[in-house]
Amino acid sequence: MRANGDPSVTPLFLQVYKERPMSETGYFQDYYPDELSHCYGCGRLNEHGLQIKSAWDGDETVAYFTPRPYHTAIPGYVYGGLLASLIDCHGTGTASAAAYRAAGRPMGSEPPLRFVTGSLQVNYLRPTPLGGVLEVRGRVKEVKGRKVVVEAWIVAEGEVTVRGEVVAVQMPETMRPAG
Amino acid sequence: MRANGDPSVTPLFLQVYKERPMSETGYFQDYYPDELSHCYGCGRLNEHGLQIKSAWDGDETVAYFTPRPYHTAIPGYVYGGLLASLIDCHGTGTASAAAYRAAGRPMGSEPPLRFVTGSLQVNYLRPTPLGGVLEVRGRVKEVKGRKVVVEAWIVAEGEVTVRGEVVAVQMPETMRPAG
Repeated sequence: MRANGDPSVTPLFLQVYKERPMSETGYFQDYYPDELSHCYGCGRLNEHGLQIKSAWDGDETVAYFTPRPYHTAIPGYVYGGLLASLIDCHGTGTASAAAYRAAGRPMGSEPPLRFVTGSLQVNYLRPTPLGGVLEVRGRVKEVKGRKVVVEAWIVAEGEVTVRGEVVAVQMPETMRPAG
Repeated sequence: MRANGDPSVTPLFLQVYKERPMSETGYFQDYYPDELSHCYGCGRLNEHGLQIKSAWDGDETVAYFTPRPYHTAIPGYVYGGLLASLIDCHGTGTASAAAYRAAGRPMGSEPPLRFVTGSLQVNYLRPTPLGGVLEVRGRVKEVKGRKVVVEAWIVAEGEVTVRGEVVAVQMPETMRPAG
């Protein structure tokens, strides 16, 4: 259930997660319609992109991501803009899944419940070590009309290094490209 | 004074800026010591990175950046995580320049005044159109001890599409790799 990266070295804390069954609904981003799947952060059709993949894990959501060696800030630590991107796309993905759940609709049913970011807050609690798998977690704080608020955090080597919040807004139909 | 991209098509609003002389101190990031110049966002030695370049423009700071075609969110618009990265690196660069200025020291003098991000707030006011040059602007709100607060905003096709704030903190010496 790893979204990317070389699985040959698995940190201990991740082995625990690998044992836990994830939701059978699969990755949220795999339900986005093709014309909305080009996002640099999480679009499955963006070959240059990060291809972030999020899934339910009980009432929380989770994504795993392995930064490339060049995703560095100060050498040895992960670039803050990448961490913000992980919070962003995991947040909008979580918002989409939460909206489907709140509406009692199966993921991917039409019309799509696709979210864009209204605002993003990221607090860097400590430097995030570069070299392993990052765990990005999310929790829905609020679903209200077209707005979903998601809190998210990033765990590296068993420690929370980043906490953030995404205010996600359902994409206006006017932004939707022809399918 | 364009940091990247194809200069063959210059939007009108940028032609105005190109006429204005920028500070002779050049790009802030070019003063970072080699071992602190690998940042994915703004390190001149990161060949995979964005190579964001910031400079004084009077009492404000400015960076120009042309997103690649694959830096997309919903097709036609710029990826929010990239916009957050521009705010982030332009913010820490501005913090460095402001700290040198506040200390009355020439840019690049030792020990380096290099900043990391403590927190990042980004408000996406409207979708940012993909296809042209983005102008990233910054203004120093506060310089206090090891902390610098920078407000920053992004202009696309003459309109402000994003507003953000960076709380930048001077990098602890313990994070500095061997030179």
